[in-house]
Amino acid sequence: MSEPFVETKSYTFAQPPNELVLKSGVKLGPITLAYETYGTLNADKSNAILIFHALTGDAHAAGWHKDAKTPGWWDDMIGPGKAFDTAKYFVICSNVIGGCKGSTGPSSINPATGKPYGLSFPVITIEDMIVAQKHLIDYLGIKKLVSASGGSMGGLMALKWAVLYPETLKSAILVATNYRHTAQQIALHEVARQAIMSDPDWHNGDYYGKSIPKRGLAVSRMIGHITYMSERSMEEKFGRRLKGKEKVGYDFSHDFEVESYLKYRSDNFVQRFDANSYLYISKALDYFDLAEEADLQKLFKGVPTKFLVITFTSDWLYPSYQSKQMVKAMKANDIDVSFIEIDTTYGHDSFLVEIEGQSKLVKHFLSNVQ
Amino acid sequence: MSEPFVETKSYTFAQPPNELVLKSGVKLGPITLAYETYGTLNADKSNAILIFHALTGDAHAAGWHKDAKTPGWWDDMIGPGKAFDTAKYFVICSNVIGGCKGSTGPSSINPATGKPYGLSFPVITIEDMIVAQKHLIDYLGIKKLVSASGGSMGGLMALKWAVLYPETLKSAILVATNYRHTAQQIALHEVARQAIMSDPDWHNGDYYGKSIPKRGLAVSRMIGHITYMSERSMEEKFGRRLKGKEKVGYDFSHDFEVESYLKYRSDNFVQRFDANSYLYISKALDYFDLAEEADLQKLFKGVPTKFLVITFTSDWLYPSYQSKQMVKAMKANDIDVSFIEIDTTYGHDSFLVEIEGQSKLVKHFLSNVQ
Repeated sequence: MSEPFVETKSYTFAQPPNELVLKSGVKLGPITLAYETYGTLNADKSNAILIFHALTGDAHAAGWHKDAKTPGWWDDMIGPGKAFDTAKYFVICSNVIGGCKGSTGPSSINPATGKPYGLSFPVITIEDMIVAQKHLIDYLGIKKLVSASGGSMGGLMALKWAVLYPETLKSAILVATNYRHTAQQIALHEVARQAIMSDPDWHNGDYYGKSIPKRGLAVSRMIGHITYMSERSMEEKFGRRLKGKEKVGYDFSHDFEVESYLKYRSDNFVQRFDANSYLYISKALDYFDLAEEADLQKLFKGVPTKFLVITFTSDWLYPSYQSKQMVKAMKANDIDVSFIEIDTTYGHDSFLVEIEGQSKLVKHFLSNVQ
Repeated sequence: MSEPFVETKSYTFAQPPNELVLKSGVKLGPITLAYETYGTLNADKSNAILIFHALTGDAHAAGWHKDAKTPGWWDDMIGPGKAFDTAKYFVICSNVIGGCKGSTGPSSINPATGKPYGLSFPVITIEDMIVAQKHLIDYLGIKKLVSASGGSMGGLMALKWAVLYPETLKSAILVATNYRHTAQQIALHEVARQAIMSDPDWHNGDYYGKSIPKRGLAVSRMIGHITYMSERSMEEKFGRRLKGKEKVGYDFSHDFEVESYLKYRSDNFVQRFDANSYLYISKALDYFDLAEEADLQKLFKGVPTKFLVITFTSDWLYPSYQSKQMVKAMKANDIDVSFIEIDTTYGHDSFLVEIEGQSKLVKHFLSNVQ
């Protein structure tokens, strides 16, 4: 059972000042956040859970939009009786700033010029995204969240929130994530960015209303898909099976199913996602380093939040050892943290598809959050 | 100590017929192979070892070209007293057909048109490359090789030679390789190909004498470099160190050392390698499946060649389990095979940099080849 039909709402920062001073020092405003909510906020506003999406996700985490063919991206986890039980909790999900799904980003109109920002949009950080969403939570009148949670980028946002606003967060559930982007994670993003910026249609970010840099964006998405799966899940799903032919074609068309899959998925992606948003959000991720300003152990000192950290054995993009380093620093500060590594073959995508194991853990964990 | 100055030689198939009938059925000719030799062929021509290069390698495996700044790509392994001891053995390395380093490939002149082949070059297979090099070995008057060896693509070429011409090969040394390309290996190549073919300068392969598709080729090489290293070796080599700056730039220039490294390496690569050759050779690799025509176990039946199979723990592009499957099939046929997994952090690149361990194994193995 899913949430009934849902609609994406919109919140624009009230005047004055309707802007943020970003981590870079640059001011950005006005700022609008797209968000959705599921379930009902109780009278004392004490049953809210904030969900963060991954790099190319959006505010539509659960339920169905009218006429949609698929539900929200974490619908298996959010709904009545599900892991994030909307019969009990008021669940909120907001599109990040820098995104292209209703929140202010590079494809938004720059009020100073009347044209889309493009590359004049300032470079943002994960912290900036969090600060923006804190405005939304304040606007909703919520002083304390039962939990904040997400997978991949969503997980590190929940982590950053816990460190930035510890008093607002009873618990955090961090799935398939890391406390800092590593060299390989940066490298994979950089290749994706170079693919986009190499596309002549990118025009230094000024392509709105013209041809979009779809070839570069498609290549970046193909790289992404390979990193989201595991070597084994690709082998199990595709192997060397040919697509629509009896034998290989001895040409450069798509012979193998895995090639067609990458093409199909990337062709869909370029219709739904803005290339500049990919640049900005991937850069924000690469800048993310929780240990940058203070020793990781000092950072967790006195944080009252209770943590559940989940990783997946076959996730090579955000391998378990990285979460284990974080959990070690938490434990050294007597933080209440549970760490579980789930045995799956689905790679990084596990946080989206390995529902049963995650649901059990999340339900049990939340039932113990006071 | 290296080989003294070496020069690349050239062999063009003698008439008639100076052509190959390829696996696809298409005829290709005339065919020229670039090759180098190190050491001296003995009187009864019984001391020859054939070395195969990897995807973007060439015939220059050892020694120094005049005025060169670096020696051949496996110079640490080939030379007097080295693993492939040129005081004892006559070592041969030839550029594959489809390549761009002197052997007939898409950048060669098509005699029928007087212009470079471009995409009119026929799609080739690993078997075609082997058949071409068998002509070279025949031309040199060598009936039996002491060994054939290589890493990555070179390893699977040695394997294919053993199955195709078992009577010509006393031993084979297969390093960091596989008996069939898997879904992930195909996917990684397909993204590289799409990056090249998305570059408007590619012009459907017809770019010779004009602008080369350097942006697409650079992106494909960056992907390659990430797959050649391990997550750990990238972290140890680069971590999150910034390049030439004190703090991040909040822009899309290169902040991190790992980003600069990828740019530097790919900028160099586009100067030395032909984009069409990347398409043809990667496709040949993706088509490679030793188990395609016959059960792997049947394939090794009666093969008299003695094998040494080497893998590296941190190699995620050609993971050890794949070689283990092959070794299992060999053992089931009572083939004399030694399998060693070397513990390294260098990933797939280990076959080029982990010299000490490989040298010991290769020397000992070759000393027992009668």
